[in-house]
Amino acid sequence: MHPLHYMTIWFTGLSGAGKTTLARSLENALLASGQPCAILDGDALRLGLCKDLGFSSADRSENIRRAAELARLMNQAGLIAIVALISPLQEDRERARDIIGCDSLFEVHVATPLAVCEARDPKGLYQRARTGELANFTGISARYEVPAHPQLVFDTSTMKVEDCVDALMRSIRISHKRL
Amino acid sequence: MHPLHYMTIWFTGLSGAGKTTLARSLENALLASGQPCAILDGDALRLGLCKDLGFSSADRSENIRRAAELARLMNQAGLIAIVALISPLQEDRERARDIIGCDSLFEVHVATPLAVCEARDPKGLYQRARTGELANFTGISARYEVPAHPQLVFDTSTMKVEDCVDALMRSIRISHKRL
Repeated sequence: MHPLHYMTIWFTGLSGAGKTTLARSLENALLASGQPCAILDGDALRLGLCKDLGFSSADRSENIRRAAELARLMNQAGLIAIVALISPLQEDRERARDIIGCDSLFEVHVATPLAVCEARDPKGLYQRARTGELANFTGISARYEVPAHPQLVFDTSTMKVEDCVDALMRSIRISHKRL
Repeated sequence: MHPLHYMTIWFTGLSGAGKTTLARSLENALLASGQPCAILDGDALRLGLCKDLGFSSADRSENIRRAAELARLMNQAGLIAIVALISPLQEDRERARDIIGCDSLFEVHVATPLAVCEARDPKGLYQRARTGELANFTGISARYEVPAHPQLVFDTSTMKVEDCVDALMRSIRISHKRL
């Protein structure tokens, strides 16, 4: 049996905050516990399902809507969906919650400070945003709205990834029992 | 273990040909054999992931592309994807094959004759297409290109659904052993 069915774990936060790293570690932990799951990563989605979309506000919003629809379908098929998307705006996250269902969505704010994310700059995007080469870049030239009521908040500049994942696994189990 | 992982069963054919009925019966058979699977039905997708799309040629093509990307993600997550989409054009089906991977795609032409589909007209669409209320309707005002090399062909006006599903389950198993 699959005790953790029908949930979506949604990581929101700045570029470089550690969303994908956390998503992959959580995936490993879930698979090790026998729970089928699938990662829906923003960068990966943009190479496939969302490759017709750019980075305008409308396109970013549509990108998030599709990820939410996809997560819902994954949940319906009995998978835990792990979404890793900057998803900077409250309005878009609320729409995602409507699509997925508020009982099925577990929101995690990866709240690593901007200065740390920018120092990491794993894809060189902050540098390009600072020179103006990249427009509409979250944290630099576009706003990030801090989630009002996330289920969990992590700062990967002060917490180890494995501790975050342990906390997540505990919270997911508790959250599931409550349903 | 999941012996039938990583495949997409793609039903193509006219509206009313029996694609959704076959998809649901196949889903039941797969679930009964312990195989996780998910149906990606054209009508259902248009209520969610593809609700921004209309029925122009470009939008129909994009609808098929997204279904293929979704099927690929489902396959990656260890599910059999069962796609039920009119998908009338060879070009779109070939793109779907490229996305999903030719070894993972099992194409089934539901070749029920147009006259039978039109007599069934389960959603009243043929009637609306004949009066001109619906434009670009496959079989009436838009062409259906018969698949060149489908793995299976069914005519649900002469075959029972259970016999089609039996044939499918056998073929899927054989196809899987060959991989």
